[in-house]
Amino acid sequence: MRALALAGGVGGAKLVVGLAHCLTPDELVVAVNTGDDEEFHGLHVSPDLDTMMYTLAGLSNPEAGWGLNGDTFTALAMLRQYGADTWFNLGDRDLATHIRRTQLLKQGLALSEVTAELCAALGVNHRIVPMSDQPVRTVLETSDGRLSMQEYFVRERAQPEVSAVHYLGSGDAIPSPGLDEALALARILVICPSNPALSVQPIVEVSGMKERLASFSGLRVAVSPIVGNDAVRGPAGRIMAGIGQEVSVVGVARAYREFCDVLVIDRQDDGLASAVAEAGVRPVVTNTIMNSLQDRIDLAKTVLSLDQQPG
Amino acid sequence: MRALALAGGVGGAKLVVGLAHCLTPDELVVAVNTGDDEEFHGLHVSPDLDTMMYTLAGLSNPEAGWGLNGDTFTALAMLRQYGADTWFNLGDRDLATHIRRTQLLKQGLALSEVTAELCAALGVNHRIVPMSDQPVRTVLETSDGRLSMQEYFVRERAQPEVSAVHYLGSGDAIPSPGLDEALALARILVICPSNPALSVQPIVEVSGMKERLASFSGLRVAVSPIVGNDAVRGPAGRIMAGIGQEVSVVGVARAYREFCDVLVIDRQDDGLASAVAEAGVRPVVTNTIMNSLQDRIDLAKTVLSLDQQPG
Repeated sequence: MRALALAGGVGGAKLVVGLAHCLTPDELVVAVNTGDDEEFHGLHVSPDLDTMMYTLAGLSNPEAGWGLNGDTFTALAMLRQYGADTWFNLGDRDLATHIRRTQLLKQGLALSEVTAELCAALGVNHRIVPMSDQPVRTVLETSDGRLSMQEYFVRERAQPEVSAVHYLGSGDAIPSPGLDEALALARILVICPSNPALSVQPIVEVSGMKERLASFSGLRVAVSPIVGNDAVRGPAGRIMAGIGQEVSVVGVARAYREFCDVLVIDRQDDGLASAVAEAGVRPVVTNTIMNSLQDRIDLAKTVLSLDQQPG
Repeated sequence: MRALALAGGVGGAKLVVGLAHCLTPDELVVAVNTGDDEEFHGLHVSPDLDTMMYTLAGLSNPEAGWGLNGDTFTALAMLRQYGADTWFNLGDRDLATHIRRTQLLKQGLALSEVTAELCAALGVNHRIVPMSDQPVRTVLETSDGRLSMQEYFVRERAQPEVSAVHYLGSGDAIPSPGLDEALALARILVICPSNPALSVQPIVEVSGMKERLASFSGLRVAVSPIVGNDAVRGPAGRIMAGIGQEVSVVGVARAYREFCDVLVIDRQDDGLASAVAEAGVRPVVTNTIMNSLQDRIDLAKTVLSLDQQPG
């Protein structure tokens, strides 16, 4: 076991693709946020687990950032005819994932076991584990009231102003067996460039995680999802602002400093390196924008090289 | 309320199309066998209810005898990739029906309420009700062991020899509210040309049905699903033989005589009319083969005319 990656959806999956290119399946565990999980049409949907799984399987839809490439939406149109709320896009092949997951959970399997089974079926060899087998639900206090993550992000297109984020159930959730094991064995912790409040913090809030991250024996490296004054993708910047965080790599450093030794920041933020250091996190400056596969591999190599260098 | 029809899948639906053409939605209740219901992929599938609903909605697949015309099978292929048993064909639009039904049942609605909601969404105005809101499962003793109806009929293609049929749960199941009301109000009971042991008998076995059918105040008319020495469609003939019934209109008359006054038989069986009468059921001879819509309407008219004639 070499590396434990903590990740949310699309941004995190990009770096994980790079890590999976550099590390064998034995050397990497990817622990994924499940605070976004939600039930649609009675089916258990795990958006971040699926984005990670589909991305590593080479099946993801790179344009949309969700779902399967070339998927069709026949069943969803029929669900709409039945009067179901269909603001959450679910393709036909994607629905099969949720149907199968829901069935296996109902049969008594843990989400970790279900995830392993789905990944194996899609030929994903690197280990993807949920952050916890117990439910955690990320809920946002917004100008439109209390919203689940998917209501906020998908239905309301991340338009409402966010004033606070809660992680319901986190006190009763414990790290999944795979995450637990990786915390003990990994030599490097990689916090992927995912939304700090909506993807990374839910993992940190799982019961016991703060202590486990504080006592982690290896190097703890985060890649900033913020470049310049906004997120590379998605609403992370506005959410950080909404909950009173500075929208910059310095804000990320302050949010992460309890569980992070090194913050990898983009060359554009070179001028903020000393402020990051002042916030208590060692800055490393490199290119963090991952457009190509090579960008992902290069960034992964940079991250993985950090625990072999003097600090 | 004029007529109560008892029906299974394809054969019954043909006559119901004719009845629905002759009667307004206020005048007809169709009570459908749910002994074939089965869970696939954690979803509640009601094959006979769906065949009836899709047929009356004009959406059925007349070639296959199941499912929706022009449906695609994208999700099922993905379920197969996940290692699920996919011998039961479920199209993408059909899956939406099962997803929606399962969700509404899980929310606490009765199968009757779910059926009404699905039918309304598909524009079916005539009232389709399940025989019961409680589960009844038709199980066959066969040369390959104990099989559910779908295992026997779909997975094993009705090949095993059947020696007995059980209706699990029928003692704890009561007629659905719609069936209960129609039994009290209808002036004619129409037993559609469905499989006697697998479609009609499960309805009869519902707790209290034998007494209710015995005391039914109107005329009780069955249309024979057997013409000559076999069923018009499906394995009804071989099953009747397997459980010791004569495979003829006389066998049908004997099986139905406790709850049936008139048996409509095909012209081909004219020579057996007196034997039907001897079995205790009044025979009516007409064309019962329903190839065209006009055939269905003509047969429905013949059936509905019977309670206006002297016996």
